[in-house]
Order: sequence, then C-alpha cells, then structure tokens
Amino acid sequence: TSTSRSQLTKFIGQVVEFAKEDANRLSFALKVGLAMLVVSLLVLVHRPFQAFGTNIIYSILTVGIMFEYTVGATLYRGFNRAIGSLLAGIFAVFVIGITLSCGHLAKPYVIGFSIFLVGAATSFIKQWPSLASYEYGFRVTLFTYCLIVISAYRMDNPVKTAVERLYAIAIGAAVAVGINVLVFPAWAGEQLHDELVDGFYSVAESLEDCVKKYLSGDGLIEQTECCKMIDKFDDDPAYRKFRYILNSSARIDTLAISAKWEPPHGRFKHYYHTWSEYVKVGAVLRHCAYEVMALYGCLRSEIQAPHDLRIAFQKDLLEAAIDAAELLRSLASDISNMKQSLQTSHLKRVHLSIDRLQSSIDLHSIYSVCESDVSKKVEKADADAKLQTQYSYHEAMKKQQRRLYSWPSRVVDELGEDGVESGKLIARMRALESTAALSLATFALLLVEFVARLDHLVDAVDELAATAKFKQVS
Amino acid sequence: TSTSRSQLTKFIGQVVEFAKEDANRLSFALKVGLAMLVVSLLVLVHRPFQAFGTNIIYSILTVGIMFEYTVGATLYRGFNRAIGSLLAGIFAVFVIGITLSCGHLAKPYVIGFSIFLVGAATSFIKQWPSLASYEYGFRVTLFTYCLIVISAYRMDNPVKTAVERLYAIAIGAAVAVGINVLVFPAWAGEQLHDELVDGFYSVAESLEDCVKKYLSGDGLIEQTECCKMIDKFDDDPAYRKFRYILNSSARIDTLAISAKWEPPHGRFKHYYHTWSEYVKVGAVLRHCAYEVMALYGCLRSEIQAPHDLRIAFQKDLLEAAIDAAELLRSLASDISNMKQSLQTSHLKRVHLSIDRLQSSIDLHSIYSVCESDVSKKVEKADADAKLQTQYSYHEAMKKQQRRLYSWPSRVVDELGEDGVESGKLIARMRALESTAALSLATFALLLVEFVARLDHLVDAVDELAATAKFKQVS
Repeated sequence: TSTSRSQLTKFIGQVVEFAKEDANRLSFALKVGLAMLVVSLLVLVHRPFQAFGTNIIYSILTVGIMFEYTVGATLYRGFNRAIGSLLAGIFAVFVIGITLSCGHLAKPYVIGFSIFLVGAATSFIKQWPSLASYEYGFRVTLFTYCLIVISAYRMDNPVKTAVERLYAIAIGAAVAVGINVLVFPAWAGEQLHDELVDGFYSVAESLEDCVKKYLSGDGLIEQTECCKMIDKFDDDPAYRKFRYILNSSARIDTLAISAKWEPPHGRFKHYYHTWSEYVKVGAVLRHCAYEVMALYGCLRSEIQAPHDLRIAFQKDLLEAAIDAAELLRSLASDISNMKQSLQTSHLKRVHLSIDRLQSSIDLHSIYSVCESDVSKKVEKADADAKLQTQYSYHEAMKKQQRRLYSWPSRVVDELGEDGVESGKLIARMRALESTAALSLATFALLLVEFVARLDHLVDAVDELAATAKFKQVS
Repeated sequence: TSTSRSQLTKFIGQVVEFAKEDANRLSFALKVGLAMLVVSLLVLVHRPFQAFGTNIIYSILTVGIMFEYTVGATLYRGFNRAIGSLLAGIFAVFVIGITLSCGHLAKPYVIGFSIFLVGAATSFIKQWPSLASYEYGFRVTLFTYCLIVISAYRMDNPVKTAVERLYAIAIGAAVAVGINVLVFPAWAGEQLHDELVDGFYSVAESLEDCVKKYLSGDGLIEQTECCKMIDKFDDDPAYRKFRYILNSSARIDTLAISAKWEPPHGRFKHYYHTWSEYVKVGAVLRHCAYEVMALYGCLRSEIQAPHDLRIAFQKDLLEAAIDAAELLRSLASDISNMKQSLQTSHLKRVHLSIDRLQSSIDLHSIYSVCESDVSKKVEKADADAKLQTQYSYHEAMKKQQRRLYSWPSRVVDELGEDGVESGKLIARMRALESTAALSLATFALLLVEFVARLDHLVDAVDELAATAKFKQVS
C-alpha cells in the first residue's frame, strides 16, 4: 500500500502541476460549474420552476452545449444556435401552414417529406467550403426544425411549448454568455496575440539552437544514433516546440474566427479587422519557420561538411544567426507591447552581417579552405599507406569516408569491396569531400534566404501595426 | 432579369459541379435525410408514438447530434454518448441515494453542490491532453447528469421518464449507426487510405514540377513579380496542392482516430493496428514534403544561380528528380493496390542517378564552369567599358548584378551610389556571382537530402505492408 500511496501522491502532484501550468484551466472549470449551478437554480428554487415548468431543462442543455473555452467561441456557438433556430422556425411555420391547408390524411406524408428534404438540404449545404465553419448552425437548424414540426403535430398546445422552450434556451444562452464574459473572461483575441508572440520567440530560439548545434557538431553525433528513427526526431524538445509552429495553421485560424466574435475589450479596441492581420503575420512567420526546418534538415543531413570548414566560417554564421534572432525578438516584443518602433537599425545590422557572411562564404574561399584541407589529408593518407599494408589502408580510407558522409553508404561499400586501386579511391574521396564542403554553402545560403524572408516579416508586422494602431515609438 | 437568370444558371451549374466532384457529398445528404425520416416515423405513425410518448423526441435529437460523415466518426460519437450517459447515470444514482438519506431541506443544497462539482470536474479533466479527444463525452456526462438529478427532484415519475428517454436515445443511436453503415457507407479508413496515396502522388508531382521550373528558369521570371506578396505565393496551384500536404497532420490524425472505431470491412481486414502505421507513413512523407518545400524556396529565392550553370547540370538534376518521383509513384501504386513489391530496382536507380548528380556537382566542376563564365563576362564588360563612358558602364554593371541576384539590393545600391572604382566593382561582382553559383549546389544537395529521406519512406512503407499483410509480389 505504500507504493500505491506514493503513486497517488505522484498523481496528485501531476494534477496540481497541470493546474498551475495555466491558471485559466482551473478558472474555466469553476466557470462551467458556476454556470451549471446558476441554471439549475431555476429548477431547484420553487418560484421560477412554477413559471417555466419542465421545459426549463432546455436551459441546462443549452449551457452544456454552448459553453466553450473562450468568449469568442461561446458567442460564435450562440450565434449559430440563434440563427439556426430562427431559420428552423421560419421554415416550420411555412410547412405547418401547408399542412393546415391540406387534408388530415396527407399531413404525415407532407411532414415526413419535409423532414427528409430539410435533412438532405442542410447536410448538403454544410459541405460547401465557405460554409464549413457554420456546421453547428446547420445541425441546430435540422433538429430544431424536426422538434418543432413534430411537436406541432403531436402536442396539445404547440405554441405554448415552443415559446416556453425558446425562453428556456434564451435564458441558458444568457447565463452561458454572461458568466463566460463576466467571470475571469478568457478572450480568444488575447490567446491569439500571445500565440503569435510566442511563435516569434520560438522561431528565434530554434534558429540560434540550430546554428549553434551545427557549429559545435552536435548534430553529427546525434545523427549517427537516430537517423533511422523518425520518432527519435521528435524527442528533441527544441524541435518539438518548433513543430508546434509548423502545425499552427489550423489553431490560429480557429482563434481568429473566435476573436472576430468578441466585443472590443481591454487593450484590443478598434480590433475587428486586425485579427485577419494576425493570421497573415502568422502565415509569413510560418514561411520563415519552413526555412529553419530546412536548416534543421542540414543539421540532420547525412552529408555533413567537415568540421574544420565549419570552424573557418563559424564567426560569420553565428553573427548572422544571432542578429536575425535579435530582430525576431525585437519584433516579438513590439507586438507584445503593442508599439511600433523602427526596425531599421536592427534590419541594417542583420543585412550587414548577412552581407559579411555572403562575401566570406563564396566559391573561392570554400574552394581554397577545402583544397588545402584535402591535400593535407591526402598527403597524410599517402604517408600512412606507405607504412601499412594495402588492405588496412583501404579500411582506414573507408572509415574516414564514412565519418565524412554516410551517404550513399551502399555505393561506398561496393567500392570498398570491389577493391578499387588506391589512386582512384583518392580521386573519388576528393570529389565526395568537395561535395560535403558544399553542404556548408547550403547551410549558409539557407540562412541568407531566411533573412530575406525576414524582410517580408517586417513588412507584415508593419502592416499589422498600422491596422491595429500600435503606438509609434521612435 | 436575363442577367439574374444567367447568374442563377451559373449558380446551379456550380452546385451540380460541387455534387459531381465527390459523389459522397450527395449520398451523405440523402443519408441524413433518410435517418431523420426514419426516426420521425416513430412519431408520425400512431402505434410507436403511443408506446413511447413525447420522450421520443430524444431519438430525433440523438440522430441530429450523432450523425457524422464517416462510419468511424459516428461510432466514435456514439461511444462517447453511451459512456458519458453511463457515467452520468452512475453518479446520479449515487447522489440521489445521498439526497434520500438527508433531510428535505438540505436536498436542493446537496443537488446544487453536486451539479457545481460535476461541472467543474468534467471541465477540468477534459483539458488533460490525452483525454482531449473525448471532449464530447465529458460534455454529455455533464448535461445528462444535470437532466437526471433535476428530473428526479422535480418530476412525478423520474424512473419511468429516465427509462423512456434511454430507450429513445438508444433507438436514435441505432438508426444513426444503422443507416450510416448500411446505406452507401463512407469509411474513414478508406478515406485515410486514399488521402495517403494522393499524398505520395502529390509530392512526386510537386518535385518534378519544382525541378522543371528551376531548370527552365520559370521561377526567375515569377519571382520578380511576386516575391513581395506572400498571398501570390499561394496562387500557384501546384504549390497550393502541396501546402495541403504540409498541413495534413491534423486531418490524418482525425481520420485515423475514426478509422480505429470501424469494424473490419471490405479490403481492410485485420486492420486495427494498421491505422497508426498509416499515421507514421504520413509523418515520414511530410518530412519528405518539407524538403520539397525547401526546394521551392530555392526556386523563389532571391539569390539565383546563373542560367548557364543550370543548363550545365540540367541532365543530372532532371534524371535524379524523375527517378525519385518514379519511386514515389511506385510506392503509391503499391499502397493503393495493397501489394508489396520489392523496390530495390527503383531504389537502386535513384541511388545511381543521385550518385551521378553528386559526382558531377562537386566543388571543382562548379568552380570551373563558373570561373570560365565569369572571366568571359568580365572580359566582355571590360571591352564594353572601353567603348562607353565610365558612368554608363557603372549602370550596366548594376543592371547585370541586379539580374543575377536581387539581394541584398540595398547594399548593391549603396555600392553603386558611392561610385566605387570599376576594379573593385568587378572583384565584388566576382564574389557575389560565385555565391550565386553556390545556390545551384544548394538545390542539388537538397535534392540529395530528399532522396536520403526516401530511404526512410521505403522502410516505413515496408513496415506498413508487413503490418497490413499486403500481398507479396516479386
């Protein structure tokens, strides 16, 4: 029992941790409890129950279905429910009018056919791409329509029932919206804002992390261990956080849709049109993130630039990455504080450092570093060869080759087994090593391309600042 | 009125087109209509209505809420509803037992407190990451619990009401599932299967498209027009189709969850464990797609390799891309036909063509092509300079520079305005042009890296074939 007790403590610890991580979680739970309590008071207290009767349970259903995490999403659901019910009511009145004019025998057939028609029509229309987000509204239309026409057919006092239910639903909706807005409101807009700012910091961090790992050669060591397992790819926390941004598209869209339903509040005034700007900035940021993804690809790539070549260009690569990350962080803090400062100085510094990188990593310099390197190695290998037997020389070369570039390993193996002459092997090694050197250029150029995209990002943030009327800071 | 009539015809044409595009859309709509009709018959026909009374409308609600597009999603919703109702029932019986033992006055307080507690607890638990997909079940638990305890408190015959509603819900669920499975069933598994196969074809097509555009220089022309607008990025149909794969993560996960709920059917027998393999293959395919994304990045990049350098390596690049696309298509047709054929010959051909590419695009060959090219241009520029005035020579150089690489345009402008001597300008041009030449190497290495990832993809597909017991074809 002592182990089960320790497991219990561990579990409770996890739950407390989970609640502490984001205080909104607990407040959301308490809000739902409160909303349910308020609507159930309508039944528990004698007076209101007498007034409404059993139809008051529709209030409870409404709160249960409508209550969402954010204010925007709740209002959006409420809107869908209201419009859906309205459409259903209009169509129901129309059909009931028809049934009154036709005979008693034909009535059930007309109703049955109309239900089939409404079911098919709403289900067909809701698949239309631009209407897909109103799916819930179409669902409400369908079953509300059915409930109304069937109640009208079978109940003694359909109008009284319908009106009572309508009141009950309205009360439930009012409670849900009221408590969601008044008690610790969780605004979708606020979340979208924070999500975007976090995205900037996250891309900046990933960029620095990636470049540092590339220069320290960490990627090389890891790569040999985990290049086969895609799952292990995901173990890296930096990478996982980063993947969160790559897949953020759907999340940001949903938040923006919810945010559009929210009334102006707090620091987000005159904000109706701004939420779509947030989506745009998010898209441009994701474009930058794809480029960082390609940089990570280099880190994990199976063709790796030799370590001394990396060292030769270390300073320029690192400076460019740090300056770019700095620009990203400065943009993030601008958005976060809702001010607009001129990024020219940052942008200029980034451009200058990229310019230095570009002029240092050109074909000639890589060529010369690589040439001297290879010829040194070849000389050394030649010297070794003279000391050792032909066989062990082959082995050493193969090992060296493997270390430099593990791909395409099959071809390398074949070459080794065929027992090619050492002269040919050296030529081949030179060729392949020079390819490996080019991978440094790839890394550098991807970094340059990343910075080119930062220009677009700065433009997008400027546009956001103009639309949202951020405070200008010089 | 003739314009409004032509608009109407156009609109009807669009709707017909939409229905034809995917026949499942129409059949889904008809199925919903049919299901609603069947449950409403319970009320319209006299006998069943007498047996069940007004609680039968819960059947209609259930069908309206439960009916989803695929069989798996409907069963999944049904499961959530069933378990949610069961939990609610158990807890309600427990709380009603407590209220019976305590006094009449305390009763409403106990009930109110229990409602608050259940509301807060379910809403807190459903935020736990691993339980997030059962959100609907927790919602059902909450409002069912409230309905039961409140009915028990206020109604004359709570047990009879509860049982009747339970029957009504069960009937609704049976109708929804029955019609969804028996009439034109839309299996989530089938959709997942098709989605994955389409993904393979789509990546293959994008790869070829991208390499062809790169070699023909189409990207260069487009790039000048649309490099500033991220929106225009999205106009390209090949690119849009491709982005659909990049963002496919959520869609595939949802389909896989639904597919797990489906019984074995048609060609998908012994398939329970296989759906997670589909998700894995999808993830590896997305990893390949990220690499194609980087290739597109080169195409749109603002540093472009000179055209004659592309021509020099055209054959090898094109061959490698076509062979890789061929391998992807062969994998796709294998999955599509549910057979496993040895991909060794395809894989070998891809490796050989990549090997050729690697040995042709090494540092030396790029260096030599580029050197001869630059020296020719410099000679030509020198000759021009002697004929023209110093000023117009500067202009020509600037233009030439711009054509080669538009980035970083600010720096280039500054250089031009400062009026650097032509000797320095030529040196600078040489350096920048050699950087541009490196961008060809980047393109080639990204292609090599793409093929390296294909190895993982082949492994993942092999694993899928083994789990799903695909037919072996030699």
